[in-house]
Amino acid sequence: MCKQPERLCFSLPEWASGYIASCGALKSPGERMAMVIGAARQNVRRETGGPFAAAVFELDSGKLVALGVNRVTAEGLSMLHGEMVALALAQHRLHEYDLGGKGLPAHELVTSAEPCAMCLGAVCWSGVTRVVSGATDADARKLGFDEGPKPRDWIQELGRRGIDVVPEVLRSEAVAVLDEYRQQGGMIYNPRSRSFPEPEN
Amino acid sequence: MCKQPERLCFSLPEWASGYIASCGALKSPGERMAMVIGAARQNVRRETGGPFAAAVFELDSGKLVALGVNRVTAEGLSMLHGEMVALALAQHRLHEYDLGGKGLPAHELVTSAEPCAMCLGAVCWSGVTRVVSGATDADARKLGFDEGPKPRDWIQELGRRGIDVVPEVLRSEAVAVLDEYRQQGGMIYNPRSRSFPEPEN
Repeated sequence: MCKQPERLCFSLPEWASGYIASCGALKSPGERMAMVIGAARQNVRRETGGPFAAAVFELDSGKLVALGVNRVTAEGLSMLHGEMVALALAQHRLHEYDLGGKGLPAHELVTSAEPCAMCLGAVCWSGVTRVVSGATDADARKLGFDEGPKPRDWIQELGRRGIDVVPEVLRSEAVAVLDEYRQQGGMIYNPRSRSFPEPEN
Repeated sequence: MCKQPERLCFSLPEWASGYIASCGALKSPGERMAMVIGAARQNVRRETGGPFAAAVFELDSGKLVALGVNRVTAEGLSMLHGEMVALALAQHRLHEYDLGGKGLPAHELVTSAEPCAMCLGAVCWSGVTRVVSGATDADARKLGFDEGPKPRDWIQELGRRGIDVVPEVLRSEAVAVLDEYRQQGGMIYNPRSRSFPEPEN
């Protein structure tokens, strides 16, 4: 208590720079999603976090702005879902907390699974104008991850805020990464989720 | 694009260490809230972020674990609401992503305003067992801040996850800080909120 407020830092795993360096502009949602799912798979196989990844792209050009992978257990911070890491790194690189700010191209978030309640809110504050997702909430819950207090009509809620959603892109490939994580005995790290009954599943 | 993934860091404003050093154990929710509202007021007056603050305390002893203040504009990261900063710093100090983990005392989050959609989700993943809030969603929306896609029954949603909510503690004092921010011409920084109609207000 009463210590000097320390600086809090987090980063991507070491393998990420090589993975990012190998990718050029990715034109289609499917190409972008394949890159993101590949990062989620690497995160599982190298045991550097949970089975989720996300990335911010320039919407039109397909240029990668920032990759994020889940870092909850690796960094010891429950907020470090793949989406949060990708959005934060993108804002950091552009020196702009609003990715929809004046003078910037439109940006999108591509995520290997539909955003949980926290990431859904974060998307609204990030300035992205499109979300492309792979695995569904039900797929994540099947693994044991609680998606949190999220409105059922979350896609409409984003639409009301000018954010389009393209769901279930390469869903089965994204689910395969979740299955691999489960088979590997990966930790279900949302502490209050293990016994949480989800009636709408 | 394709740069080395950089380390992303953020911190509290410089004045915070002195503010934290002056506080001892705070027994009642009101004492804890007064400390948090005081930090929000400092954040406004010193122009180091938005008019919101939060802190993590040990529930029983009232020992402060971590203070957070809104750092969105100061750090250029839209996720840095006061609650997110407080929860992340608390987890960082305890080297534990689950503040409700075995061997730890119970923890609570005291926040100068009810959590937005993002922070509501973050609360669920943090491991705190109680949330004490000051200003309401309606108070924040009155200032122009969108609270995001948040279920109307968010207090019940937290209750289902074992998290109690004590709302409207020192509400008028918390609202006074929002008013001071508005009078000062502070930025309403949620980019998509300015023209967003909120029907339930």
